[in-house]
Amino acid sequence: MPQLHLEYSANLRSLDTDKALLRLNNALVASGQFSDEVDIKSRAVAHEVFRVGIAPAERAFVHVKLALLSGRSPEVKRQLSADLLEVLKDLVPAQAGVDIQLCVEMLDIDRDSYSKVRLPA
Amino acid sequence: MPQLHLEYSANLRSLDTDKALLRLNNALVASGQFSDEVDIKSRAVAHEVFRVGIAPAERAFVHVKLALLSGRSPEVKRQLSADLLEVLKDLVPAQAGVDIQLCVEMLDIDRDSYSKVRLPA
Amino acid sequence: MPQLHLEYSANLRSLDTDKALLRLNNALVASGQFSDEVDIKSRAVAHEVFRVGIAPAERAFVHVKLALLSGRSPEVKRQLSADLLEVLKDLVPAQAGVDIQLCVEMLDIDRDSYSKVRLPA
Repeated sequence: MPQLHLEYSANLRSLDTDKALLRLNNALVASGQFSDEVDIKSRAVAHEVFRVGIAPAERAFVHVKLALLSGRSPEVKRQLSADLLEVLKDLVPAQAGVDIQLCVEMLDIDRDSYSKVRLPA
Repeated sequence: MPQLHLEYSANLRSLDTDKALLRLNNALVASGQFSDEVDIKSRAVAHEVFRVGIAPAERAFVHVKLALLSGRSPEVKRQLSADLLEVLKDLVPAQAGVDIQLCVEMLDIDRDSYSKVRLPA
Repeated sequence: MPQLHLEYSANLRSLDTDKALLRLNNALVASGQFSDEVDIKSRAVAHEVFRVGIAPAERAFVHVKLALLSGRSPEVKRQLSADLLEVLKDLVPAQAGVDIQLCVEMLDIDRDSYSKVRLPA
């Protein structure tokens, strides 16, 4: 925990996903909400097959889902969501001819049934 | 919002995913539940590595997950789920020798911590 | 139902995902919680773009998400989670130089709005 998923439409070819994940993870560390940076597990997925709405205009999206063990306050979740959106805004500039949406979703994971083991190097 | 994920087992080679996403998005627009069609963000993912159950029979699945901002009634969610399943039934015909499951799952997204920005074209 | 997602960082090259899904599905059947083995739908996804934390050390993860129709007890969910983690521990040995995390997350699916149809072979 936490688990971060970054999804984006593949027409955003210039997105540097390695940089994006490092920036997002750094924002989570900076929040002070997580006791050990190694717990943050993030991945990026490009979607070649996507559709935004039904109009023929060119559109794109970047969507971050952050799954946290349950128990954090609404204020903390709002702040984390805002922090991650700031990173996305910095990473994805507006583009002429492309209507882009950047979204951040927070999800609680049931703490009681979460299982984990670490196999140290 | 909403966010739609279409997943399918890659043995359903004839599935036209571009058409499927457009049909699913059209069904969501037709529901009248969403004020702006541009808010609907959909993607399709084929799974090359999958397993249905433990028997050696050939099996397949199509799974739609629709994530909505929290607050819609159970009736609305049941209706949206049924609408999307109708689209899947129309898109995926029965196939001799393949046991196919079509599923639709509705998921609430925490409205309070959802963040979004739009960068218009 | 249930729906199982296995995700893993692509630096775990030796993971046999076909075997992993069969073993995980067998563990679910053995739990006695599911009346028909054909209901278990599992898939595996390798993530080429991932980051664990912010340090430059080599790290890896395997993450299982099991989505169940809502209504099962906390005890049942804890036991299923523990069962799946045992399978992961058996499948993924410790590796010199790689810090590996194995995780299992349980998720409830809203039973009321879940739709499904089966097209038998």
